[in-house]
Amino acid sequence: MSKKPLILVTNDDGITAPGIRTLISVMNTIGDVIVVAPDSPRSAMGHAITINSTLHCNSIKIDNGPQKEYCCSGTPADCVKLGINEVLERRPDICVSGINHGSNSSINVIYSGTVSAALEASIEGIPAIGFSLLDYRWDANFEILKNDIKRITKTALREGIPNGNALNVNFPKLKQSEIKGIKICRQAKAYWVEKFDKRKNPQGKEYYWLTGEFINKDLENDTDEWALKNGYISIVPVKFDMTDYNNIKRIKNWEF
Amino acid sequence: MSKKPLILVTNDDGITAPGIRTLISVMNTIGDVIVVAPDSPRSAMGHAITINSTLHCNSIKIDNGPQKEYCCSGTPADCVKLGINEVLERRPDICVSGINHGSNSSINVIYSGTVSAALEASIEGIPAIGFSLLDYRWDANFEILKNDIKRITKTALREGIPNGNALNVNFPKLKQSEIKGIKICRQAKAYWVEKFDKRKNPQGKEYYWLTGEFINKDLENDTDEWALKNGYISIVPVKFDMTDYNNIKRIKNWEF
Repeated sequence: MSKKPLILVTNDDGITAPGIRTLISVMNTIGDVIVVAPDSPRSAMGHAITINSTLHCNSIKIDNGPQKEYCCSGTPADCVKLGINEVLERRPDICVSGINHGSNSSINVIYSGTVSAALEASIEGIPAIGFSLLDYRWDANFEILKNDIKRITKTALREGIPNGNALNVNFPKLKQSEIKGIKICRQAKAYWVEKFDKRKNPQGKEYYWLTGEFINKDLENDTDEWALKNGYISIVPVKFDMTDYNNIKRIKNWEF
Repeated sequence: MSKKPLILVTNDDGITAPGIRTLISVMNTIGDVIVVAPDSPRSAMGHAITINSTLHCNSIKIDNGPQKEYCCSGTPADCVKLGINEVLERRPDICVSGINHGSNSSINVIYSGTVSAALEASIEGIPAIGFSLLDYRWDANFEILKNDIKRITKTALREGIPNGNALNVNFPKLKQSEIKGIKICRQAKAYWVEKFDKRKNPQGKEYYWLTGEFINKDLENDTDEWALKNGYISIVPVKFDMTDYNNIKRIKNWEF
C-alpha cells in the first residue's frame, strides 16, 4: 500500500472555529494531518503577511484526534509559510484551508484569508484547496459537507492540481439531498457596493463600519455564482499570476 | 479647456512616507488631488480589509500643497473604499498608489498593499496605477521619478486603462540617465524561499522573524524582472479575476 499523504490544514477563522475542526476530522480519514492555524480569527486578511513584527507558533491540543496542531500569531499566509518551512518535517502532499464560515465566491476570493492560504501553498508548489460554506453562522452545519470534501480532496490528490493553481471550492447552503453536484467554473464578475455605517463614539468622535451590498450582473451559466445559486458545489481554479495577458499587446501600443 | 481630472492618491507606507509625498506633488501638476492614506505603515497587507473593527478617517494638513488629505486607520484597500464612497464628492478619474519604498515586481504583487489599493479601485471600475521603486530606503531618491510618473499617468488617462485592470509600475534603482525606457511585461514566475529567523525573547520564549531569499528562474525577456534588471521601467497589467481559464477544461475532465 502507498504511503499516507501528509496534509497541512489551516484557515482564517482561527484554530478553534467549527469549520476547521470539521476539516481536520475529514483529513484524518485521508492522511497524516498537521494543523498550523491562526490563534484567533483573521477574516478578510487577503494575502497579508507579517514582516514588521514577530511571529509566535505554539503546539496545542484541542481534541483527541491523531493530528498534530500548532497555533500561530500570524495571518493565514504566515501559517502556511511557517508550516512548510519550520513545522513540517517534509513537504506536504496537499494543503487544505477552511472550512470558511461564509462565501469566498466571485470577488470575495481577493479578500479571503482562506483562499490566500491555499494560494500561498500553490506559490510554494504544493497542491492546495480552499473550502468555504455559504453560511456565516458559527454553528453552521459543516457535518453534511464531509463526504464531498473527502471526495474532492482525494480526487485532487489522484488527478494532480495543475502547477501554479489552487482550487477555490464553495458549498451552497443546502441539505445534502438538495446538492446537484460539482461545477468547474470561472469567478463571476460580481462586486460589493460599499456602505459605510457612520457612527459616533461615546466621546462624540465619528467612526465607520464597513458594510456593503453584493451585486452580481454577470448572469452567464459558467460562473461560481450561477453554480451556487443553482444548487451546485463550485470549484474555480485560481492562480497567483495576476498578469492580464489579453491586455499586454493593447498597452504596448500606447504612446508614452 | 477640459475639466481637470480628479485624482485619488493612497499608499501602504503611510501618509507621511516620502514616496507618497512625491506622488502627491506630481499629481498636483495633473489634476485635483484628494489623498486618503493609512495613518501608519501597512506594508505587506495584501488585499486585507477591515470588517471586524471600526475605521477612523480624519482630515489632516501635512504640507502647503493644494491637495486635500485624510488619514485613515485602515488598510490600503479600506482607504480606497472610504475615499470613493465617503470622502470624494464624485468618482475619481484615476487612483494612484505609492510610490512604494521597495519592489512590487513578480510575486511581490500578491503581498503588496500598494498594488491591492490599485486593484481595489479597478474593482470599483476606476482606472488605477500602483508605483513602486526598487529601493527600500526611507530616503530613497524619488525626485528623479517625477517626469516618468507624470508621463505614465497622463498616458493612462488619455489611452484608458482596460476595464478590470490596474497597472503595476516598478522603477529600477538607477539614475534617470541610465533608464532605457518602458517595457510592458508579464509578472515573472519568481518566488521567495522563506527563512525564519528563530530567536528567544528575554523570558526565553521562542519567536520568529519572517525573512527570505528571492529566487527567479524565469529567465525569458518578457518579464518584469528582466525589464528591471536591464534598465527599464516595468508595467504589468494586473487583474482581479483570479480564474485560471487555461485549466478549467482540464479539471472538468476529472472524475469525482
